[in-house]
Amino acid sequence: MSPKANWIAVDWGTSSLRAWAMDAEGQDLATASSDQGMGQLTPRDFEATLCALVEPWLSAGQTNVIACGMVGARQGWIEAAYDVAPCKPQLGLTKAPTNDPRLNVQIIAGVSQAKPADVMRGEETQIAGFQKLNPNWDGVIFLPGTHTKWVQMSAGEIVSFQTFMTGEMFDLLSTASVLRHSVATNGWDQAAFDRAVDEAMSQPAAIAARLFGLRAESLLNDLPPATAKSRLSGLLIGAELAAARPYWLGQSLAMIGQKSMGVGYAAAFAAQHVPVIQTDATQMTLAGLKAAYASWKETL
Amino acid sequence: MSPKANWIAVDWGTSSLRAWAMDAEGQDLATASSDQGMGQLTPRDFEATLCALVEPWLSAGQTNVIACGMVGARQGWIEAAYDVAPCKPQLGLTKAPTNDPRLNVQIIAGVSQAKPADVMRGEETQIAGFQKLNPNWDGVIFLPGTHTKWVQMSAGEIVSFQTFMTGEMFDLLSTASVLRHSVATNGWDQAAFDRAVDEAMSQPAAIAARLFGLRAESLLNDLPPATAKSRLSGLLIGAELAAARPYWLGQSLAMIGQKSMGVGYAAAFAAQHVPVIQTDATQMTLAGLKAAYASWKETL
Repeated sequence: MSPKANWIAVDWGTSSLRAWAMDAEGQDLATASSDQGMGQLTPRDFEATLCALVEPWLSAGQTNVIACGMVGARQGWIEAAYDVAPCKPQLGLTKAPTNDPRLNVQIIAGVSQAKPADVMRGEETQIAGFQKLNPNWDGVIFLPGTHTKWVQMSAGEIVSFQTFMTGEMFDLLSTASVLRHSVATNGWDQAAFDRAVDEAMSQPAAIAARLFGLRAESLLNDLPPATAKSRLSGLLIGAELAAARPYWLGQSLAMIGQKSMGVGYAAAFAAQHVPVIQTDATQMTLAGLKAAYASWKETL
Repeated sequence: MSPKANWIAVDWGTSSLRAWAMDAEGQDLATASSDQGMGQLTPRDFEATLCALVEPWLSAGQTNVIACGMVGARQGWIEAAYDVAPCKPQLGLTKAPTNDPRLNVQIIAGVSQAKPADVMRGEETQIAGFQKLNPNWDGVIFLPGTHTKWVQMSAGEIVSFQTFMTGEMFDLLSTASVLRHSVATNGWDQAAFDRAVDEAMSQPAAIAARLFGLRAESLLNDLPPATAKSRLSGLLIGAELAAARPYWLGQSLAMIGQKSMGVGYAAAFAAQHVPVIQTDATQMTLAGLKAAYASWKETL
């Protein structure tokens, strides 16, 4: 039999949805997930989608739900206003409209930055989770993903941040461009990756000239597809590291990310002799949702 | 009634096919085109596709056909070997297999370069056309397109060349990435384009950090979609111009390109006070096919 939840924690991104049934002591009793991310839903789909996933955990009375991520975007359930950096993460909550009386859904504010213009949704919760587990830590938090974030933290505040589209560029170039004929989906060539990172970091301007070379090398010299993939990844990550240098050079660095997304960066940092604290993304998300719930409870 | 062709000129690219009925004096009598590019055909489709287009021009006897472009790629009608730079363009021809006795189809060799590895197919014919119309011209020929080529010419030879994926990157980012929500298909903001070219040329490493800013500016500051489009184009073209600087700085420069592809580059060159000879791509292609046919006739 499914446990009844004291409250429910929800991480709702563009491509996936995950929920945890929580007890009164902040322990997770059960978890459920689906691929019904914000990207495929219209605003009126959200309530039914959530209900279908968490129904077994609901009691007769009202259950509080704390959610983070793209569920609060303009195309999400309801637009949750941004907190404006510099700021502590998770200052604001927006109540989502619901018909089912058993649900009280609160969406955590994203963070925006005026200059240079930038936005995050969901990462602020992972950051809050990291803060909870590492109190008084100052430095740079690095969150690899489709859109990688570099976040300068000081005295508990997000001081500034910067987003890179490196993950999305890699996906597009390796699956939708002419390079798809030359780039493998599997396999890895660490030496080729390392060389490409070096090349791109020392000559970031030249990367635009190197991409088509992967196709030409494959046509003329049978470049192995796994090598082409590793080289493409290295060129893009190297270009990002060159542009993000102020964020990591001489800074305390912590990485919050799924292993698959972070493995290239971790290798690149190792090659640059930059020490990085590695943390688990899911654990940080859940800790952040718990922190948001605890803060909200205090205000009730 | 359709004219009968003395011979037929064919430009067969990835996404389109164009043919001209030529008379014995090298004048084009008629032209026909279709969207049946190499990209959607298997090797055995090519003969029927060509026949369907040029049938009205064929006589009872055999008609010679000279073709350039991706029709000679590994996935094309038959793989036409590359000439290897440094070389004159259009040294080799490869006979395509045909069943119809009325057709004798010859495909013009592409050009490859060993280091850095690079390839072209079709551009060599436009270059040969330019040479025919501008004898003894030395300098750099610039061919904007999905895959832009920069080609150093000297004493009638392709000395070296370099391909950039700028056009394909622009298409992918503006239609398939998160930026598609912020980038218009129509409209143009020349000042935004000019500023972005300047930014990317002076700090090419920073472009990776600027792309997501287009999305954030649109969310936070209602950046007009036409401005976002112009800025995206400017950032990508500026990064290419920075990387291709040795090809254009202090060089005689000629551009072979469709007006739509070349307009951004032309504006960027104007802002850099770089004079560029502008030529018409179709005219160069036809002149190049005529040059190839004339050379071939001499060898018969």
